[in-house]
Amino acid sequence: MIPANALLLTDLYELAMLEAYHASDMDDEAVFDFFVRDLPPGYGYLVAAGLAQVLSTLRDAQFSDEELAWAADSGRFGDDFLDYLRGFRFTGSVHAMREGTPFFPDEPVLRVTAPLPQAQLLETRIINLLQYQTLIATKATRCVHAAPDKLLVDFGLRRAHGAEAGLMAARASWLGGFAGSSTVLAAPRFGVPIYGTMAHSFIEAHDDELVAFEHFARARPQSLVLLIDTYDTEGAARRLIGLAERLAEDGIQVQAVRIDSGDLGEHARRVRRILDDGGLGDTNIFASGGLDEHRIAALLADGAPIDGFGIGSKLDTAADTPYLDCAYKLCEYAGEPRRKHSEHKATWPGRKQVVRRYDASGRMRGDRVQREDEPADGEPLLELVMEFGEPVAPTPTLADSREHCAEQLGRLPDALRALDAQAGYPVDFSDRMHALAREADVHIEKQQLKSSGGNGP
Amino acid sequence: MIPANALLLTDLYELAMLEAYHASDMDDEAVFDFFVRDLPPGYGYLVAAGLAQVLSTLRDAQFSDEELAWAADSGRFGDDFLDYLRGFRFTGSVHAMREGTPFFPDEPVLRVTAPLPQAQLLETRIINLLQYQTLIATKATRCVHAAPDKLLVDFGLRRAHGAEAGLMAARASWLGGFAGSSTVLAAPRFGVPIYGTMAHSFIEAHDDELVAFEHFARARPQSLVLLIDTYDTEGAARRLIGLAERLAEDGIQVQAVRIDSGDLGEHARRVRRILDDGGLGDTNIFASGGLDEHRIAALLADGAPIDGFGIGSKLDTAADTPYLDCAYKLCEYAGEPRRKHSEHKATWPGRKQVVRRYDASGRMRGDRVQREDEPADGEPLLELVMEFGEPVAPTPTLADSREHCAEQLGRLPDALRALDAQAGYPVDFSDRMHALAREADVHIEKQQLKSSGGNGP
Repeated sequence: MIPANALLLTDLYELAMLEAYHASDMDDEAVFDFFVRDLPPGYGYLVAAGLAQVLSTLRDAQFSDEELAWAADSGRFGDDFLDYLRGFRFTGSVHAMREGTPFFPDEPVLRVTAPLPQAQLLETRIINLLQYQTLIATKATRCVHAAPDKLLVDFGLRRAHGAEAGLMAARASWLGGFAGSSTVLAAPRFGVPIYGTMAHSFIEAHDDELVAFEHFARARPQSLVLLIDTYDTEGAARRLIGLAERLAEDGIQVQAVRIDSGDLGEHARRVRRILDDGGLGDTNIFASGGLDEHRIAALLADGAPIDGFGIGSKLDTAADTPYLDCAYKLCEYAGEPRRKHSEHKATWPGRKQVVRRYDASGRMRGDRVQREDEPADGEPLLELVMEFGEPVAPTPTLADSREHCAEQLGRLPDALRALDAQAGYPVDFSDRMHALAREADVHIEKQQLKSSGGNGP
Repeated sequence: MIPANALLLTDLYELAMLEAYHASDMDDEAVFDFFVRDLPPGYGYLVAAGLAQVLSTLRDAQFSDEELAWAADSGRFGDDFLDYLRGFRFTGSVHAMREGTPFFPDEPVLRVTAPLPQAQLLETRIINLLQYQTLIATKATRCVHAAPDKLLVDFGLRRAHGAEAGLMAARASWLGGFAGSSTVLAAPRFGVPIYGTMAHSFIEAHDDELVAFEHFARARPQSLVLLIDTYDTEGAARRLIGLAERLAEDGIQVQAVRIDSGDLGEHARRVRRILDDGGLGDTNIFASGGLDEHRIAALLADGAPIDGFGIGSKLDTAADTPYLDCAYKLCEYAGEPRRKHSEHKATWPGRKQVVRRYDASGRMRGDRVQREDEPADGEPLLELVMEFGEPVAPTPTLADSREHCAEQLGRLPDALRALDAQAGYPVDFSDRMHALAREADVHIEKQQLKSSGGNGP
């Protein structure tokens, strides 16, 4: 079976355009930018994520024999083009912001420079990879702003949109500052710390809730978290006291209880009192169920004594903003600047750099998008990360990127960290960028006049 | 690298519970139901989808050597349990509604019967697979209701949450009645018809829009769709007339033009007039950009002369309702009915059947959830689809399921087909189901009394 991340995981129009390019040898160098047009409502910034997966996709881009056999059998493509597909590799270069870097609308986050067909074919998957992890990493940082000193764990695999989404959500939320994920595969694949509790079914499969607790505690004594809301939350907390004493005699500590239903704040307050009165002051309270950054902030503002949160469906589906208004657009071909003019979707031409300036205290002060060859008055954010189809060593580890993200978030203006951010961040375009855009427009107008002349109104 | 659909694609708590079950030989037969608690706002029904992927996951469930090596190295699990994981297979049975069947809250859509650890481990992935395709298939049927005679194509891969989401959206939207998808891989994997046009970058890479059109037309003359909104939509439509005449001389027909920006209805009206006046009455208009079922219905209600729609981000991310309130819950263990009582999350115990009744005209009249062994006064919807870990032949093809879905949608009460459905559909629980729930409650109360007595408040 052709794997789900095969090169055929693309839009048919990419192959159609490639065949047309191939037919007329249009393989001059093209430059494409990936960028976002708007921030989601209430968001002050976005966090770049997914670059590592883009780079491995480009490095390994090659049609398998199975894919080629399908393409030949489909009757959709000419023999000459099929030969071309057989030899297809990505030989271009990539400039990108580091994973974990905050960015803003209209800033190129990633730039691909390659022969036109190569840069075109990968469009669909590049957007697919960057958009999702950017959504999740950003949302994770917003949860961290809401609960900076709490244990935050991704619980969303089951409600994520498929296998890759669940796995990448674990990666991206850790990048964004979560403590870890419940998704086991994220440990071997990305070194993400993993966390787990127990399900209601475990309690229900036993004839007695306390027997279930003790059974679990003795089988899995490390990092013990007991789920107490299967029947009666406060009742379970009370009954737990005696059990905890017996377990303590054998050196087993109930590290936390988990509440997954009802009014989480109210239950947490009552359970905290019961645990404290019962001598379990060191046992933490972990909450889950329908949480996102807003709900967490509200619970903590209300004084809920909750020490950690499991954040699932609303994180892994980016429920408040499940997609970004993002694009991957041609900005140069064969040395000429290019842009499109579609209503509300005009783009900036040419090769760009994003330069970030900081104030004396190290806080971000504003970005400028400028031509690549303009002198940088600040920190250039786009770095060369792939050349001749190979990653430029050394690629940062995910742990490095996570540290970078935390450091960068510390430099954000406070107003942008608000969960309902109203303030904008200053991003301007250099005079030379404006001049280049005008130049591209004149070019477009000329060719339209020419076409009109030739074909009548 | 461990593949993204490996058995470790699960929550850590599943493995923790398995180790506890293993430690005390709790491997009696368990029964779990997958069901949805509520319909999304405005939805009159949901459409079952994703069963084929669940069955192949269960059939192939086996830890790879790489996974086992990681589990051993992690130090998280005992040797005896690692041996158990090495031999892990799914040997149980599955009852399920056919893909394409409409269903309603609290109705089991899928039931797993297996030794407790087997039924438990697969929980996370079963929910992950069923939820997403159910969301997408349902949304696709709603688009079909909005535009029953139009060409509807899934364009969402780039904004889908990862590879699997994009691929499964193509599958599920075709199941729901779409004409096809732009996702190439859906053709070899699932036999989904694929469609493609061209990107703005193709136009921009040429010095002249008309030259780009002609180049594309001659390279890919079949099913020719030209994208006309890169610079000036109506201008491009006018200039196209002369080109179309020249192409027609060589037997090439411009099947459609595509509009992807601006006021789609207004542009479509103007372009229709231009094409009709220019003798291109047979050239269709295809629209895309920010579409969902509501927008499509509004465009058509407004008389927009649009013949087909490309539906992307809002379909593939199920943007209005990106996750379902769904669950996979234990309802029987070791022959005893089980349920949980958590606030607002109580579940129904026991093995169930869903029986659907129809009126004289074949329209659905109401469903009853009853015990499996009660006589069925209507059509039983849950069928045995897997036994002893192997699918029960023959599995319907996706094309069969698509036909079944269309047939079933024809039997829905009209009110449920509304995009903003207010009416409910009658689902009741048999007297014997109510009696069983009471029986399970008495059992829970007894054990709680017992626990309370033992440990004091």
